[in-house]
Amino acid sequence: MKFTLGSELQYTALRDTTMILNVEAQDVPGQRVLTEQFSVTPQIDTEAHQPPETSNRYRRLLLHPGDYTIRYEATVETAPFVQLPDRIDETPIAELPLSVMNHLFPSRYCESDQLARFVWRRFGDIEPGHGRVDAICEWIHRNVDYEAGSSDGSTSAYDTFTTRAGVCRDFAHLGITFCQALGIPARYVSAYAWKLVPQDFHAVFEAYLGGRWYLFDATRLVPPEGVIRIGVGRDAADTAFATFFGELHSAPKSVWVNAVEEAGSPLVQAVSLTSS
Amino acid sequence: MKFTLGSELQYTALRDTTMILNVEAQDVPGQRVLTEQFSVTPQIDTEAHQPPETSNRYRRLLLHPGDYTIRYEATVETAPFVQLPDRIDETPIAELPLSVMNHLFPSRYCESDQLARFVWRRFGDIEPGHGRVDAICEWIHRNVDYEAGSSDGSTSAYDTFTTRAGVCRDFAHLGITFCQALGIPARYVSAYAWKLVPQDFHAVFEAYLGGRWYLFDATRLVPPEGVIRIGVGRDAADTAFATFFGELHSAPKSVWVNAVEEAGSPLVQAVSLTSS
Amino acid sequence: MKFTLGSELQYTALRDTTMILNVEAQDVPGQRVLTEQFSVTPQIDTEAHQPPETSNRYRRLLLHPGDYTIRYEATVETAPFVQLPDRIDETPIAELPLSVMNHLFPSRYCESDQLARFVWRRFGDIEPGHGRVDAICEWIHRNVDYEAGSSDGSTSAYDTFTTRAGVCRDFAHLGITFCQALGIPARYVSAYAWKLVPQDFHAVFEAYLGGRWYLFDATRLVPPEGVIRIGVGRDAADTAFATFFGELHSAPKSVWVNAVEEAGSPLVQAVSLTSS
Amino acid sequence: MKFTLGSELQYTALRDTTMILNVEAQDVPGQRVLTEQFSVTPQIDTEAHQPPETSNRYRRLLLHPGDYTIRYEATVETAPFVQLPDRIDETPIAELPLSVMNHLFPSRYCESDQLARFVWRRFGDIEPGHGRVDAICEWIHRNVDYEAGSSDGSTSAYDTFTTRAGVCRDFAHLGITFCQALGIPARYVSAYAWKLVPQDFHAVFEAYLGGRWYLFDATRLVPPEGVIRIGVGRDAADTAFATFFGELHSAPKSVWVNAVEEAGSPLVQAVSLTSS
Repeated sequence: MKFTLGSELQYTALRDTTMILNVEAQDVPGQRVLTEQFSVTPQIDTEAHQPPETSNRYRRLLLHPGDYTIRYEATVETAPFVQLPDRIDETPIAELPLSVMNHLFPSRYCESDQLARFVWRRFGDIEPGHGRVDAICEWIHRNVDYEAGSSDGSTSAYDTFTTRAGVCRDFAHLGITFCQALGIPARYVSAYAWKLVPQDFHAVFEAYLGGRWYLFDATRLVPPEGVIRIGVGRDAADTAFATFFGELHSAPKSVWVNAVEEAGSPLVQAVSLTSS
Repeated sequence: MKFTLGSELQYTALRDTTMILNVEAQDVPGQRVLTEQFSVTPQIDTEAHQPPETSNRYRRLLLHPGDYTIRYEATVETAPFVQLPDRIDETPIAELPLSVMNHLFPSRYCESDQLARFVWRRFGDIEPGHGRVDAICEWIHRNVDYEAGSSDGSTSAYDTFTTRAGVCRDFAHLGITFCQALGIPARYVSAYAWKLVPQDFHAVFEAYLGGRWYLFDATRLVPPEGVIRIGVGRDAADTAFATFFGELHSAPKSVWVNAVEEAGSPLVQAVSLTSS
Repeated sequence: MKFTLGSELQYTALRDTTMILNVEAQDVPGQRVLTEQFSVTPQIDTEAHQPPETSNRYRRLLLHPGDYTIRYEATVETAPFVQLPDRIDETPIAELPLSVMNHLFPSRYCESDQLARFVWRRFGDIEPGHGRVDAICEWIHRNVDYEAGSSDGSTSAYDTFTTRAGVCRDFAHLGITFCQALGIPARYVSAYAWKLVPQDFHAVFEAYLGGRWYLFDATRLVPPEGVIRIGVGRDAADTAFATFFGELHSAPKSVWVNAVEEAGSPLVQAVSLTSS
Repeated sequence: MKFTLGSELQYTALRDTTMILNVEAQDVPGQRVLTEQFSVTPQIDTEAHQPPETSNRYRRLLLHPGDYTIRYEATVETAPFVQLPDRIDETPIAELPLSVMNHLFPSRYCESDQLARFVWRRFGDIEPGHGRVDAICEWIHRNVDYEAGSSDGSTSAYDTFTTRAGVCRDFAHLGITFCQALGIPARYVSAYAWKLVPQDFHAVFEAYLGGRWYLFDATRLVPPEGVIRIGVGRDAADTAFATFFGELHSAPKSVWVNAVEEAGSPLVQAVSLTSS
């Protein structure tokens, strides 16, 4: 599918403030950026950084006091690798690529070391594979209320598991946590999301199955073929669209995604947007 | 039923240490102390205190440095009020005695304010009454591993709900928390427990139903008719068998309970050991 | 001093909702209610409850769906027991009335069992007495930012100690926690507070020293002689101005306190509003 | 300096268990492995993995049920880059290499997002540079009790900051957390440590200052020139000496470090063991 998408952020820096942005779409085999434009008004220099292990596109800005508008626009074409879900197996830990092993470890928002008893009791008897991660998403969807304002920047999977309310970021953290506790590598994905209402940056997660990273969205808010990846990482701490060191005020942001060519019919297949 | 029971505690005080003991059986309408003996060796004065709202029997001791043996022995007869479970309703909050309302509030180990979504989703559709609290016990019994050493003095229901392991105290805290979150007053009970293996002080909980406090034990380790109440309170913080202020070492304690006259057959009825 | 004070709360009940109010001023030896009026519009029956151990004045209401205005107005005269701070000693635990011992135990929002090392290292060498609790208030005042919106209903002293931000309720919880960890009984007090800007219900704490409960306010927002007690309890869970079981919306509340006769000069003395 | 060092681990696998080991010394410019030997008895195949971003040396083993002894021995020569501490500045965030920026983000055991107010109030006025991180270590050393058994695998910096007790891993987590909250990249280092009593694997941390990673040890248990790095990562979750997926029992491990050639005199300089 082909999308036009973008975001516009507005800030007032109150003192010199260093900002790390991560709003640009990944440009990887399954997701190609055809055209794009990034601008800061007033114009300032920015420094780009793309770690090879993630392909995330970070950009650093030094904002002196004043008002800034940051705008990103792109045309992106996705050609996800799709597969019938029941053909996708879990990979035994003994056979996982060693480079994905660190996605089994707990992180700031995903305390997978604490939930082993629950996940094995609840998901341990489900046949391993894509369907088991789907069962995890189904459980989250049924047991956690999607409710704006029910969580904040300090909320972790440990909290969400108890309070049973959150937003997309909390749903993704819980999905990652359950997978890791079962021995399935999983990671966080920030994304543009087609048909998300109201529009905003979205968060989903990927699980490593059958030799690839497959996308999952426990919120059920967008179709999997409508996800355009921005950043991958262990959790929201790694993939914030903006991290700043200094002091600033922010105005409401706008985010948009439009389909240029729509897919013929909804997918009933598992989706992987990356070969790495 | 009639029981002989007791406990022996041994301490070495390293400096002047004030101790609050709560090891003596309650003497209330459904549970009568027939004979008892309390001693400290070497002999020292102790000060007794029995707050009318709980009938707990606290005893304060000031230990100077040295070795102490504290021994309690009693013969206790219980005549529980029993009722067929399906005749026991929940009391609407609007009709609860105002004196039990504070047992709806969260406490150190029972963060019932955090679990409302879970309990309503899981237990909200079960018919109110004794059976619903039984369903809570059944859930705890099936979903939490009873495992010595899996928790410590800082473990609360919030933790146990996530980690799914604990001992009798954690099982009781979780039961109280679930009840309170549903609007059922609940409280913690420390107890001597007949047939508990290995013998130790035990913890169960009481829920306020149909105008009385009924006993529940989510551990399923002892028969309800084998529980002899020591202390009631909000949680383990209120009913520790020994709280001390100072510095001491403790040796392994011993606890024993023997039935003098056994009941003819196991009870299939709900048990209430108190009229208040 | 003599005050006129009151509060007006407005609710829309969405279904049958039971409410426990605690907005009426205590009527105790050091604080006398001269006149008062409580009303609910439209008029409904309410049920009053005053537990002897606290003198708190709870009132239960059953709200059927609809709009309600709850108004309380009173004239209250306070005649606090005052004492020179340096004449107020701590009471050794071995000599505390047994009825206040339970105010040494941790509660939902005051995990005093976790902070012993810190408080002994920081306050252990300060001379026991009123001055030590003052030092605790001074520490809180200097180290915690008073910031509206920085905490919520799940925030406990454990959190505030780390994040170092909160509102009056968090300041009181931290004060209680530090006192308890030092072996000083302490409890939470909700209050009307003269000169509080902006006006709202306030929270302070009391520590048991020299045989009485003395008032402390780590926020330093109001003069101690301007505090009119509503409820005392272990923490905010016991003394909420409104606890409800059901579903309702609330409109902004109003709270007011005016001095009818002002004290001649600010107090430099420790204040105790209760003889119990 | 030159060291002979090693470790011996013994396990009984109860079922097929995949293990990730990280016990081999790093082989990097400032720390050279001269000779080494790794063995598993009975002999089994192992698979090595060294991610370029850390130079950690992971090794994966699949243990079938049975008893295993894993032994590592090496001769390592360290030639740390040393510098006078007062010549080492902090690097402004706007000038940090983008590849180290992720060491500013919070992790499972280092919730640096929660501690900003404390660190700025306590360390904000200290002159930036190596001395400020030294002040952090000094604070930890003075305020946290080093006590075996006072923490466990779920203890994070958030907990240690409140309870004020821990072991080397907790000291390192707290140091990392404070640095990150101040805007100084910091990471966890597992190590062999000369003169550590009793011998065991050790944990220290590194802060990124003046263009390099400098070593810090808030426990003050070993001299900085006696640290031989094994693994670096965000926290203990990344650098466990053994992570396993399966079920096993472990026997006590042994760890040893001996100096072959001792340094002439203790260092009074800052130490960096890596150029990356």
